[in-house]
Amino acid sequence: MTDRLDAQFAFLTEADRLKSILRGTTLADASRRENSGEHSWHLALYAMVLADQAGDGVRIDRVIRMLILHDIVEIDAGDTPIHGAHDPSEQAAREQAAADRIFGLLPKDLEADFRALWDEFEAAESADAVFAKSLDRTQPVVQNLASSGGTWNEYAVTWPQLQTRVGSKIERGAPVVWTWLRARLKAFFPEA
Amino acid sequence: MTDRLDAQFAFLTEADRLKSILRGTTLADASRRENSGEHSWHLALYAMVLADQAGDGVRIDRVIRMLILHDIVEIDAGDTPIHGAHDPSEQAAREQAAADRIFGLLPKDLEADFRALWDEFEAAESADAVFAKSLDRTQPVVQNLASSGGTWNEYAVTWPQLQTRVGSKIERGAPVVWTWLRARLKAFFPEA
Repeated sequence: MTDRLDAQFAFLTEADRLKSILRGTTLADASRRENSGEHSWHLALYAMVLADQAGDGVRIDRVIRMLILHDIVEIDAGDTPIHGAHDPSEQAAREQAAADRIFGLLPKDLEADFRALWDEFEAAESADAVFAKSLDRTQPVVQNLASSGGTWNEYAVTWPQLQTRVGSKIERGAPVVWTWLRARLKAFFPEA
Repeated sequence: MTDRLDAQFAFLTEADRLKSILRGTTLADASRRENSGEHSWHLALYAMVLADQAGDGVRIDRVIRMLILHDIVEIDAGDTPIHGAHDPSEQAAREQAAADRIFGLLPKDLEADFRALWDEFEAAESADAVFAKSLDRTQPVVQNLASSGGTWNEYAVTWPQLQTRVGSKIERGAPVVWTWLRARLKAFFPEA
């Protein structure tokens, strides 16, 4: 039992480093960049609040667990701003190596469970993962709406870019949310 | 549907302010104080990782939801460091008023659900709440162990204080975790 708890606490203490990974997006009041730990909390809350927007068969408690884990690989692989330039295959390789190392700190049973949830999120195919991904795309839009456009200005984002990289993913998992956002996006993107 | 989404997003954007509430405890690397948003994420992860330490009848998914919500009243009421001086009845009144206002931003059905979960956590009587509370007491101990004693030095915490305010609550919900911690606390508190 002690060896098992050693591994459990080693993982939990390593996970603390996610609080020092800074994202592209800021807080809603634009006072500073958001970190991936607090972002993951916010997304879990998004899942609780927007559960009625989930499609048939979505199990919200699995979505919440997925969202709690979804960014943990960033401890090694860093955050990839959605509107920044990056090589997707290189990023994916870094994230796989990070998942091996970080989930590998856990006892084997938990490693297998957590890795399977993270793999499912990354694959974005199951109903739970599609909804989780749509929330992960929704939250930065809401942060930017609250902070006068936030990182859309910084990255000079165009409406077609936002539509492709963000809107299509929100629409897939939470279409009514995308309609709601789109009405508010007109203030920033006249074509919306 | 639009009115409902307006209320849902008003709550989610207000909740963002929890990321600016600073706690007594620091990050594990002592680089800065932890905020209550990222702390809530970390606790949800604690529940996932330490689920096998929960007592009979504990439903971990309810514990996770409770922990996601547990500190949200601090947006209005502030954090109360466990080893700091404060008037408990005044603090409780501030937190009740905060719960009225903040959960009151939600649609009525969600307000009732979230408030009931938060009330249950505060009452610390149900099996789920007792386990959630034990995790809320465990995490700062682990943070302090990782950061050379952290806020125990700052608040000049004695072993009897730690035993009463922290140990007894961890022992109630997760006794084996307290045994594990106690062995490590001897380096900071010889009487442990």
